[in-house]
Amino acid sequence: MARHIKKSKSEIGLSPYAFVFRGEQKIKDVLLRLIDFNAESLNESVVDSVSKAAKYQEKDSVTWFNVDGLHNTKLMQEISKDFKLDPLMLADVMNVDARPTVKEYNNSIFISIKMLRLDEKSENVLSENLSLILTKSVLFTFQERKGDVFEPVRERIRLQNGRIRRGGTDYLLFALLDIVIDHYIYLVSVLGEKIEALEDQLLAEPTQEVVETINFYKRELNFLRRSIKPAKEMIFSLVKLDTVLINEETALHYRELMDNVNQANESSDHYREILSDQLNIYHTTISGKLNDIMKFLTVFSVVFIPLTFIAGIYGTNFDFVPELHFKYSYFIMWGVFVVLAIAMLMYFKNKKWL
Amino acid sequence: MARHIKKSKSEIGLSPYAFVFRGEQKIKDVLLRLIDFNAESLNESVVDSVSKAAKYQEKDSVTWFNVDGLHNTKLMQEISKDFKLDPLMLADVMNVDARPTVKEYNNSIFISIKMLRLDEKSENVLSENLSLILTKSVLFTFQERKGDVFEPVRERIRLQNGRIRRGGTDYLLFALLDIVIDHYIYLVSVLGEKIEALEDQLLAEPTQEVVETINFYKRELNFLRRSIKPAKEMIFSLVKLDTVLINEETALHYRELMDNVNQANESSDHYREILSDQLNIYHTTISGKLNDIMKFLTVFSVVFIPLTFIAGIYGTNFDFVPELHFKYSYFIMWGVFVVLAIAMLMYFKNKKWL
Amino acid sequence: MARHIKKSKSEIGLSPYAFVFRGEQKIKDVLLRLIDFNAESLNESVVDSVSKAAKYQEKDSVTWFNVDGLHNTKLMQEISKDFKLDPLMLADVMNVDARPTVKEYNNSIFISIKMLRLDEKSENVLSENLSLILTKSVLFTFQERKGDVFEPVRERIRLQNGRIRRGGTDYLLFALLDIVIDHYIYLVSVLGEKIEALEDQLLAEPTQEVVETINFYKRELNFLRRSIKPAKEMIFSLVKLDTVLINEETALHYRELMDNVNQANESSDHYREILSDQLNIYHTTISGKLNDIMKFLTVFSVVFIPLTFIAGIYGTNFDFVPELHFKYSYFIMWGVFVVLAIAMLMYFKNKKWL
Amino acid sequence: MARHIKKSKSEIGLSPYAFVFRGEQKIKDVLLRLIDFNAESLNESVVDSVSKAAKYQEKDSVTWFNVDGLHNTKLMQEISKDFKLDPLMLADVMNVDARPTVKEYNNSIFISIKMLRLDEKSENVLSENLSLILTKSVLFTFQERKGDVFEPVRERIRLQNGRIRRGGTDYLLFALLDIVIDHYIYLVSVLGEKIEALEDQLLAEPTQEVVETINFYKRELNFLRRSIKPAKEMIFSLVKLDTVLINEETALHYRELMDNVNQANESSDHYREILSDQLNIYHTTISGKLNDIMKFLTVFSVVFIPLTFIAGIYGTNFDFVPELHFKYSYFIMWGVFVVLAIAMLMYFKNKKWL
Amino acid sequence: MARHIKKSKSEIGLSPYAFVFRGEQKIKDVLLRLIDFNAESLNESVVDSVSKAAKYQEKDSVTWFNVDGLHNTKLMQEISKDFKLDPLMLADVMNVDARPTVKEYNNSIFISIKMLRLDEKSENVLSENLSLILTKSVLFTFQERKGDVFEPVRERIRLQNGRIRRGGTDYLLFALLDIVIDHYIYLVSVLGEKIEALEDQLLAEPTQEVVETINFYKRELNFLRRSIKPAKEMIFSLVKLDTVLINEETALHYRELMDNVNQANESSDHYREILSDQLNIYHTTISGKLNDIMKFLTVFSVVFIPLTFIAGIYGTNFDFVPELHFKYSYFIMWGVFVVLAIAMLMYFKNKKWL
Repeated sequence: MARHIKKSKSEIGLSPYAFVFRGEQKIKDVLLRLIDFNAESLNESVVDSVSKAAKYQEKDSVTWFNVDGLHNTKLMQEISKDFKLDPLMLADVMNVDARPTVKEYNNSIFISIKMLRLDEKSENVLSENLSLILTKSVLFTFQERKGDVFEPVRERIRLQNGRIRRGGTDYLLFALLDIVIDHYIYLVSVLGEKIEALEDQLLAEPTQEVVETINFYKRELNFLRRSIKPAKEMIFSLVKLDTVLINEETALHYRELMDNVNQANESSDHYREILSDQLNIYHTTISGKLNDIMKFLTVFSVVFIPLTFIAGIYGTNFDFVPELHFKYSYFIMWGVFVVLAIAMLMYFKNKKWL
Repeated sequence: MARHIKKSKSEIGLSPYAFVFRGEQKIKDVLLRLIDFNAESLNESVVDSVSKAAKYQEKDSVTWFNVDGLHNTKLMQEISKDFKLDPLMLADVMNVDARPTVKEYNNSIFISIKMLRLDEKSENVLSENLSLILTKSVLFTFQERKGDVFEPVRERIRLQNGRIRRGGTDYLLFALLDIVIDHYIYLVSVLGEKIEALEDQLLAEPTQEVVETINFYKRELNFLRRSIKPAKEMIFSLVKLDTVLINEETALHYRELMDNVNQANESSDHYREILSDQLNIYHTTISGKLNDIMKFLTVFSVVFIPLTFIAGIYGTNFDFVPELHFKYSYFIMWGVFVVLAIAMLMYFKNKKWL
Repeated sequence: MARHIKKSKSEIGLSPYAFVFRGEQKIKDVLLRLIDFNAESLNESVVDSVSKAAKYQEKDSVTWFNVDGLHNTKLMQEISKDFKLDPLMLADVMNVDARPTVKEYNNSIFISIKMLRLDEKSENVLSENLSLILTKSVLFTFQERKGDVFEPVRERIRLQNGRIRRGGTDYLLFALLDIVIDHYIYLVSVLGEKIEALEDQLLAEPTQEVVETINFYKRELNFLRRSIKPAKEMIFSLVKLDTVLINEETALHYRELMDNVNQANESSDHYREILSDQLNIYHTTISGKLNDIMKFLTVFSVVFIPLTFIAGIYGTNFDFVPELHFKYSYFIMWGVFVVLAIAMLMYFKNKKWL
Repeated sequence: MARHIKKSKSEIGLSPYAFVFRGEQKIKDVLLRLIDFNAESLNESVVDSVSKAAKYQEKDSVTWFNVDGLHNTKLMQEISKDFKLDPLMLADVMNVDARPTVKEYNNSIFISIKMLRLDEKSENVLSENLSLILTKSVLFTFQERKGDVFEPVRERIRLQNGRIRRGGTDYLLFALLDIVIDHYIYLVSVLGEKIEALEDQLLAEPTQEVVETINFYKRELNFLRRSIKPAKEMIFSLVKLDTVLINEETALHYRELMDNVNQANESSDHYREILSDQLNIYHTTISGKLNDIMKFLTVFSVVFIPLTFIAGIYGTNFDFVPELHFKYSYFIMWGVFVVLAIAMLMYFKNKKWL
Repeated sequence: MARHIKKSKSEIGLSPYAFVFRGEQKIKDVLLRLIDFNAESLNESVVDSVSKAAKYQEKDSVTWFNVDGLHNTKLMQEISKDFKLDPLMLADVMNVDARPTVKEYNNSIFISIKMLRLDEKSENVLSENLSLILTKSVLFTFQERKGDVFEPVRERIRLQNGRIRRGGTDYLLFALLDIVIDHYIYLVSVLGEKIEALEDQLLAEPTQEVVETINFYKRELNFLRRSIKPAKEMIFSLVKLDTVLINEETALHYRELMDNVNQANESSDHYREILSDQLNIYHTTISGKLNDIMKFLTVFSVVFIPLTFIAGIYGTNFDFVPELHFKYSYFIMWGVFVVLAIAMLMYFKNKKWL
């Protein structure tokens, strides 16, 4: 499920300005998609060159320029040149293992965050690095592969009377980040439901398998947390940013992002605690069971030990054992067995071991 | 007992301006209740339309406008329009799973908090989302269902000479929040008493059931904590707010809210620790018991093992076993039994295993 | 020992201005004591009405007005009126379950703290709520019952050349708070000595009783901590207060209070860790013991199991068992027993199980 | 693997100005290397005296002066004199056990950090203290031995069109620190891969050896953490430094260092948690196994105990045991054996012990 | 080893101005030592009265006035009077159980810290309270007994060309505090070496004694930490102090103190973690061992239980047991024994219990 942050030997010591794709190539061709809109008009298209896209930046409209696939360094250079973006940002875009961050540049803000979503078929969580660059008229989004979580935003853009059509790039950025964080909350709650469903099974039958499931969910939750925690820090930095690129009215929405990412974080904390409680319940139940078994064994064998011993005594072949020759010895022995057994059971009862 | 925060797939990506009720509808019809008062006059009524209520906002009095039921989006739009409230606030009112928060708008403050109360019959804790909007002349409260914790405040309003009659909407807001937080303290102390009562039972008879009760209380406490913790943050933000809507004299009371929500929080921390101590006591007691049982088993079987072995030896059918033919062999064997048993018991005594 | 913070249903929703005694009445009659002093003169008396006490406030001297018993609401109102104190403060005085706090009012500061002391007879810790109101010329103290920890301060006042006689109400306040916090340190150290004394007993004989004592001390320590922790916060707020009521020279002493309450806090943290270490030592010792017992049982029974089995074989009644008829069979069997037993013991020795 | 911070008796009380090498000498001769470059020219050389190196400081170029070996106190004094560096800095350079720190001096900044790298042959992590002194025209680096992690930076310098050739000493400092921190990330990820590989082994065969490996990795991780944690603090102080030696453009890169060192830190936290989870899994699995074994033993012996007892009874040699003489007694006994065994197995099945 | 902070009943409520020695008298007579120096001259002497010492304060030199023994209250008053020191400081000097602190007075700074050192003979850590008072021309040090850690500083003073001879009282203060903190680092590292040496022993032979040693070291480490932690806070306050008594150049050294005390603190944290890891290793090893023993017992007894049972069957004395009379029964029985035993061993092998 999880991709762990790796650092290969060859990546060490690269210049931050080096245009090198640091990651695993996930699609063959880079796809450039563009949505240009304002309150009146809407233009959604796939473009085949950066230069065509660059023409939109002069227009008095909001342009959302989405790039799927990050391995084409030449294209990245074109973007940097045609849109006059600091090359450092595009070098960062290609470093997909970096930590979610916010960096302010001249006239632009670079943002990166992990985008998580549930693969409908495999039920796996797909994680990819999402980089966004906010300028006054264009919002860039860079994804590692096709397919994303932004369809609802596109739908809202397509509706002529949506609020989003009257907002700027800052509002669009909010809408995208909002949906990314909503997915965090959604994924945590999907996992959370599974975790809660485990509880009943745990109480009914505390098998080793349940523990393994708990540990599996723990790892899954940790995977989510590793994206949520730095995202929270990133959102908090973003809100504190003093920038003209985000107008005051939209800033209010950004504070809402803080609430949401906080909620995702707290929810994941909550389920983490539940998992750890479940492990404790498992251990308590198991040790309670072991206890019961031990008690049973003890009582059982302790009752039989002296009886078997007595039988053993009268199995000896000594020439002279007076008891062997009394007529009722055998029945007396049975009587002793019964009395002894009852006495011992009462002793255990008294000790609360039964 | 608890309602967990869920995020359904369809809620993801909604515009913050979308007028959609995100929750479970809990009553059929929306009920609009209104209390308008100043030091001299009092008017308590149920109104059937928003427009009737809206007339009160011009009056030089404090208006408390309470809405039970949040699913009627049309009505929400009327409220927004008639009272000139930012639609964002009313969209938030309908999002009942949101995290307790404070947001400042032009001439109004939006507050949300979880309202907890004990259902008298079922002894369950009922939780619902409470949203409040503070303006200069009107205080709005939005509840998910009928029935709330505010009756004592209504009583205080009905008394002509109460302090509340001479205060503004800010003082009324304080009174309502105060009562919500008082309920937190009350619920924690009710649960706390049950938790403390458990202690004696735990020491007397550390059964598996007690552990299950501990775990149950732990979950209940966690449920309370999940409302109290964000409420604390919310109150702290509220106190720090620099607003003209809350006058200086009332601000002093708001600081008292901080003390109270802190107390609720600390109390819940305290009981949490007690629960975790109780689990430890359980484990110590149980393992102490297992220890006793093991010691008993060991001593018992270890005493009989060699005796039974000796009896076994003289049960063999070898043609030539000299001891079998001595007259007092059998009695000597008994003597050996007694001596061996005593020696072993003394050894264990010495080892402090007895 | 401990009084837990309770919230009864009837207290919920009370106005902060309500003059209601929220607590348990601990003495029958309210006692008003008054000490009025300056560098030259001293007047110590019991007064029977508030109005008599109120006359002292005009004098150019320090007046310490102490009230034992908080249930007389009428008297509280008289104090508020005669001394021109904000009624909110006196309402707070009567709320004995509130959290220690500092509140600044016009020309006065309200302080509450828990006063702990050791009952000489019962060795119990007595806890009561202490409220103090600091004005320029009068220091009010409100206690739940007669008997307090302030006798040493009264002694110092009675000495004509004491520093306290030349100080103001702020210095008197310091002296009282200092003594309250000194008692925290004292109580923690008294408990701490008992805790340390436990250590030897624990190592010598780790019985279940020792664990119960540990758990008992843990609860006692938690009880102290619940007073110390908020007191620390309160003192820190008090020091940060920017007020004319406390002059600069005295402020230096207030910072010393911080050191002291910090020391009480750290000491209690220290003993808390010791207790938790002791529990660990107990568990380690107990499980070490169980281990020893199990090892002994294993070795013992494992040595005898095959021997008893062999004896069993030659106890069978088969018609044709050749070994039975050899002359030295029986002695050979003994030899086998000895060899087997030694071999097994060596095996265990080798495995370090012995 | 790790070198622990030691303080020998003789080092106590040395003056901070004392020119004493506090560490272990790792190479015989001190090696002075020098790289002097600007956008146009590059000069890489080994110099044999400080005075030759000192000539470069006047030139309008960036000089990187690297010293391998710190034990030559005379040479250190020459550096201090010839480059006009505060002797305190050079005394600090020779104190290799000091904590990573940043200190600002007149016209220079002293930085120390632990440089970690993987020895290719032994797979051990080599740790040494790296001190850097930043002045306007010269960057000094002091290493304990030959061999470092800076080769990629040297390569970048050798390329004429690299960004580094156009930067100042501040950019060079960034490049060096960046590579040091990249190595932290790399080492954590190398260890992390080993830790993750352990998981499968742990689930397949939870042997004692796995636990020892876990504990070994824990110590290795702790060793890394002890360098990373103070490095993080150091980088944060460096970023907050208000100095003319670092120009604004480069400052942006320094903030990137923060992200990176944060990532190293979080990664190490992550693997730490994984290790602790693995230990828990081990314990759970082991105790689950013990549980299974105990259950088996219990069931097995409990089934045979009464059977053996019965056989024992009929092995007694009483003269009068009626059952012995019935013809089918022996077969009836077998029947009783079978019935008893089945009954007991069903009982255990029912109890879920099987 | 440790002296715990005690509060005797009689100390409660003392005025902060009370000249009372609160501690245990450790030497009979008070010893007054004086070192007066500047760059040119040096005068080291024992004086017999305060007034003689007081003459030095007017001189244009640095005077270090050391007092061994704190019980002579009259002498303290003389010091206060002759050197014009605030009596509060000297009252604090006599309160040896107080928490390390910094207090700023008019023209002087009061500092207290715990001075720890290793007694060479007993290998015990000696702890005493050290108070220092810094004025422009005199540095006072107050110790509980003779013998201290300052000899290296005295040596440095005796060297004419030492930096310390050219510094002021502030530099002397730094040198003394530096040496106190160096001793913290030294003591932690001495203990740390012992702790690390324990590791091998722990892995080789995890006896109960090792656990007791671990717990003993834990207490020793806690004792060190109780001095280091407040010392750290104290040093941090001292650095933040805005005072003319410490000149800017020396302030740089004070920041170094912060690094050092931080290092002592982190080192102690590190060894604390190691100790807790060691305890975990012990428990894992022990429970692994118990596991092995249980497995052995189970396998062993489970193999013999049915065999012994079979032998028991043929030891019964029934008149009619057909198998007893077959010629090869006995040998068939042995065959059954071998087959059964092998089958069971294979079963356990398969279950991985062997």
